[in-house]
Amino acid sequence: MAPPPSGGFVTEYLQQNVASTLEGGFQVLMLVSYRRLLTALLQAQKWPFQPSRNMRLVQFQAPHLMGPHLGLESGNGGGVINLNAFDPTLPKTMMEFLEQGEATLSVARRALAAQLPVLPRSEVTFLAPVTRPDKVVCVGMNYVDHCKEQNVPVPKEPIIFSKFASSIVGPYDEVILPPESQEVDWEVELAVVIGKKGKRIKATDAMAHVAGFTVAHDVSARDWQMRRNGKQWLLGKTFDTFCPLGPALVTKDSIADPHNLKICCRVNGEVVQSSNTNQMVFKTEELVAWVSQFVTLYPGDVILTGTPPGVGVFRKPPVFLKKGDEVQCEIEELGIIINKVV
Amino acid sequence: MAPPPSGGFVTEYLQQNVASTLEGGFQVLMLVSYRRLLTALLQAQKWPFQPSRNMRLVQFQAPHLMGPHLGLESGNGGGVINLNAFDPTLPKTMMEFLEQGEATLSVARRALAAQLPVLPRSEVTFLAPVTRPDKVVCVGMNYVDHCKEQNVPVPKEPIIFSKFASSIVGPYDEVILPPESQEVDWEVELAVVIGKKGKRIKATDAMAHVAGFTVAHDVSARDWQMRRNGKQWLLGKTFDTFCPLGPALVTKDSIADPHNLKICCRVNGEVVQSSNTNQMVFKTEELVAWVSQFVTLYPGDVILTGTPPGVGVFRKPPVFLKKGDEVQCEIEELGIIINKVV
Repeated sequence: MAPPPSGGFVTEYLQQNVASTLEGGFQVLMLVSYRRLLTALLQAQKWPFQPSRNMRLVQFQAPHLMGPHLGLESGNGGGVINLNAFDPTLPKTMMEFLEQGEATLSVARRALAAQLPVLPRSEVTFLAPVTRPDKVVCVGMNYVDHCKEQNVPVPKEPIIFSKFASSIVGPYDEVILPPESQEVDWEVELAVVIGKKGKRIKATDAMAHVAGFTVAHDVSARDWQMRRNGKQWLLGKTFDTFCPLGPALVTKDSIADPHNLKICCRVNGEVVQSSNTNQMVFKTEELVAWVSQFVTLYPGDVILTGTPPGVGVFRKPPVFLKKGDEVQCEIEELGIIINKVV
Repeated sequence: MAPPPSGGFVTEYLQQNVASTLEGGFQVLMLVSYRRLLTALLQAQKWPFQPSRNMRLVQFQAPHLMGPHLGLESGNGGGVINLNAFDPTLPKTMMEFLEQGEATLSVARRALAAQLPVLPRSEVTFLAPVTRPDKVVCVGMNYVDHCKEQNVPVPKEPIIFSKFASSIVGPYDEVILPPESQEVDWEVELAVVIGKKGKRIKATDAMAHVAGFTVAHDVSARDWQMRRNGKQWLLGKTFDTFCPLGPALVTKDSIADPHNLKICCRVNGEVVQSSNTNQMVFKTEELVAWVSQFVTLYPGDVILTGTPPGVGVFRKPPVFLKKGDEVQCEIEELGIIINKVV
């Protein structure tokens, strides 16, 4: 049996492996493996840190703290270490944190290595890891299979559109269905967060400009995207609350390979998108190089790298989000964001 | 003879009136009128302020000052009053100034009424009146004649696209021709600057959310706007330096009627666009109401309200900007921005 993946993909892994093993008749063996796995998971919960890795930066609020703070998520799904308490000279927003570059990152690294109090997850409110960036750049049709499902050729160049930063909400915030749209759809996406200013960045230098990655939900009103507004996608993509992000900005050195991560979306528990970031047409390096031909990238800028197949609009018949739905967007190693539709 | 218009349109007025009067044979009378007009203009230069009007907010730099400052342009084309020297508690950026609303505006009003030192125009560098807003919203095909010149019907709803804030430059900055485009075109536009946060703003309440107006140049790479990038306009509109703004944010109460202002663009001195904002299909109130259906508007957000006819791409043969060109965008009462193409 292959080693279990991290995060919530474990459930899927267990279901698949339990099922196939039962079919093979090795029921007892399987139950033993299952227990070992659970034990390993529980232990992982106790020691979430690998000091040189796993830096999960968050913006959060807590009842006893005034306004937004910067923190470290103590492992995927763990509590929060208050970075501003560890070093009161640190800025309180991710934008400023990123703008200060290596100076602030090294403080976060020291905090990661220290034994610091962890605020229980139940006592904090997670905000989006980046708020009010200069840009939210989006990439269209960037998964081979997603192009197939809509019968369009795989693009030869990235197709770039945008959301306004005002559409960003936190990882567990509500997505508000606007009365103006009857066709609101889901799209899980890997989001790149820029860490260093640059223009005309070469693909070979691109990762030096990337701070890390997070999970994005590129909520899309298909009627406005595809048929209204002179077919300019912007309005359909940028209603308030249409860009949940989080739970953490996972720094690039904390991820083995951003282009080999399972990515999935569930609506009310049912898997609707399931792919791997290795299916991306244009990878992070190419996207940073492409976009920075046109515009200067700034710390905090977010690039949503496109969605895999399985969106609602191309189903037969089409399926759209309705009030009360719960959408989970998950990317291996990065975490899961859960947004209720209201 | 109708009363002379304000600002640089005076030259045009004089040329037109001198010409028609000479044709009529009233040469002596005309010369007298011409002198009177010049005298009136010179007097206006000395007393540029009408205390209850003419608030022209600017962001500027000067050699003796550290970083950007807030100021008042002393009349259209005049020197600059340093608002941060008048009241050191005032913020130094327009974004923060606008966020503080009436409190900061009343300080600026007091400064306007006082006799304060004026920095000569030659000693200051004008920045864009707003930098790094949350949004630069743009409106497509919003002049009836501009729709006619491209053979498209007048839109029934506003067509909304965007630029990234990173494309904003100052009123006299250079526009950089990117090597990626061979079809860079001009577009003079009236820009609305939002002063108060709002969502789902009614058209009847819209002006309460508007701080004022400024001149914008919506520089447009037609190849990227119209043929590349899956026909999404964003990239063609958002190259760095593609959004000169200024010279001042002229507050709404300083303008008699924003929808009755001459608007014109000159390339190397030749008038290429000449219209009036009364030709706009959707006016400021309707645009604020429309956009705020989708997104929360924040102080500092800029709405470019579309361009009149006369752009280069629809000329026969098409004409595009080249290195060394000088583009002047001018709107009556608001002022003139001059951007060299390099």
